[in-house]
Amino acid sequence: MNRMGKATLVFPNKPRIHSWASIVGYKEGQGPLGHTFDVVLDKDDTLGELSWEKGERKMFTEAVKLAMHKGGKHVEDVDVLLGGDLLNQIISASFAARDMGMPFLGLYNACSTMSESLLVGAALIDGGYAGCAACAVSSHFATAERQYRAPLELGNQRAPTQQWTVTGAGCSLLCRDPAGIAVTHGTIGTVTDLGVTDANNMGAAMAPAAAACLKTHFDDTGRSPADYDLIVTGDLGVLGSRLLIELMRRDGITLDENYIDCGMEIFAESQDVQSGGSGCGCSSAVLNGYLLKKLMDRDIRRMLFMATGALLSPTTTMQGESIPSIAHAVVIEGG
Amino acid sequence: MNRMGKATLVFPNKPRIHSWASIVGYKEGQGPLGHTFDVVLDKDDTLGELSWEKGERKMFTEAVKLAMHKGGKHVEDVDVLLGGDLLNQIISASFAARDMGMPFLGLYNACSTMSESLLVGAALIDGGYAGCAACAVSSHFATAERQYRAPLELGNQRAPTQQWTVTGAGCSLLCRDPAGIAVTHGTIGTVTDLGVTDANNMGAAMAPAAAACLKTHFDDTGRSPADYDLIVTGDLGVLGSRLLIELMRRDGITLDENYIDCGMEIFAESQDVQSGGSGCGCSSAVLNGYLLKKLMDRDIRRMLFMATGALLSPTTTMQGESIPSIAHAVVIEGG
Repeated sequence: MNRMGKATLVFPNKPRIHSWASIVGYKEGQGPLGHTFDVVLDKDDTLGELSWEKGERKMFTEAVKLAMHKGGKHVEDVDVLLGGDLLNQIISASFAARDMGMPFLGLYNACSTMSESLLVGAALIDGGYAGCAACAVSSHFATAERQYRAPLELGNQRAPTQQWTVTGAGCSLLCRDPAGIAVTHGTIGTVTDLGVTDANNMGAAMAPAAAACLKTHFDDTGRSPADYDLIVTGDLGVLGSRLLIELMRRDGITLDENYIDCGMEIFAESQDVQSGGSGCGCSSAVLNGYLLKKLMDRDIRRMLFMATGALLSPTTTMQGESIPSIAHAVVIEGG
Repeated sequence: MNRMGKATLVFPNKPRIHSWASIVGYKEGQGPLGHTFDVVLDKDDTLGELSWEKGERKMFTEAVKLAMHKGGKHVEDVDVLLGGDLLNQIISASFAARDMGMPFLGLYNACSTMSESLLVGAALIDGGYAGCAACAVSSHFATAERQYRAPLELGNQRAPTQQWTVTGAGCSLLCRDPAGIAVTHGTIGTVTDLGVTDANNMGAAMAPAAAACLKTHFDDTGRSPADYDLIVTGDLGVLGSRLLIELMRRDGITLDENYIDCGMEIFAESQDVQSGGSGCGCSSAVLNGYLLKKLMDRDIRRMLFMATGALLSPTTTMQGESIPSIAHAVVIEGG
């Protein structure tokens, strides 16, 4: 069995991240990681399309195409596209898949979809079911805001616990290569819900899921934070990250200087984004920009990448439900 | 490589369908397959919950629990729940996963999600990444109708090409067993869109995707319709099925008496459902009721099960988009 403990998959054939690409919006490009992304859009966040939704889809498509281009791969080389996004019926991913014409498996675990896609993709490559899998997700401030919250035109005030949905897309091309950056393990998350009902405080809702996944990962593998040069969460933001550190401390596990959160890295405090960045494009762009570059440059050798997702919908919030959350972790090692 | 041709996965370790269960609504229970489902609900389609959405979630949960119960499995035996549904942010699956507490990977390919879950689940079992995977999906007439179309209270007239969203849920428990009904192959679909824009005619939108997947499957495996005792599509309905037969005929492939569509089987013509049943609960309930029973009873020995999905959203329809569709096929053989 290629499995350890309760929920950790092992990939002995080391699926490699053959190439990768990231695209972000103008605001994200002005942040501290701006120089690490392949493409920073100009201020037109429709990408010249007739709607924000069509713009997001174009961004998704371009991220996949750019990852293929950087890796010298063509559509016919890609055995499957694994991806999703935050829009109802994951239309960004589905329509991008239509436009590109490769076999497609749609995934949805909210903002944890990037690590979900890497986990499923790595299993398909490792098991010999695919030679090359494109793992891609996107999010867009304007499409998410109007779907999940309120029309942008209202100019609603934002709560201090709120996070700013990142406009961004990222794609990792997993291949059966002999060498390179590898995905070695994946830990599947369990839905966790400690009863947070405030849809403007996703960080608090997601932190327990992140803690649960992290704990399962360490239990399953016998590893500890010291085994990683970097432990990265998806988009817990300022508040959620603090909660995660506290939850882990209670279990006797110290998250220290080697822990960062993509939602805190992507924006500067001066950018007025309250608790930080969010959206599946957040962790995806940071992974496929800043983080994989760090691995390639050998700044770090082994990283635990754990995107986090809040599985609510506006309907469940209106029906008085709390916010179930999930996190999936993958281990990524330098070549 | 455990792969044939363009998009077909091979599962040499034969993941087995250890046990299965289906639950349907009252109307579905009155149809010709009513006696093949494990549970037929009474006329209260909220299942005693405060909303239809909470009712659908309960139905999803009960289908998974019943499949586990029938197979003598407990929550801790199930390594992963793979599932989705039609609601925004797949809340039925996510909240069911929360309530049951097993590792969860959320999937979404609209009404093709049942075969998508079997395909991903079979790869995880076959590759040794999981010992037992619950593959489950649901749909509900009342939740889908108000999300995708209009408030039920309006009593809108229905178009003759329209299909009736099935209230139903099904779960197949895939395990690493030595014998039993097996999933031997899976063909991943490619998103196909011939330009149909009528959201009340999903059958026409989905038929080309079904034809494309079927053709890819035969090309990849070297098989023909004669190799199957039964070829089953998800929910093309009366019109879509006719279109599929015609599209295949143009490619020189005859779909004959061994071809059925779940959307046509689940309701009688007298039940006033226009073009037939739809929704991911349709193919899921028929598979986990009627079809697996046929395999167990050795009425048939080898079946190609291909659920079909329309990947639109109300937003894409309002933005003037056509309807991209997809179909995934899995080969299921009697023990």
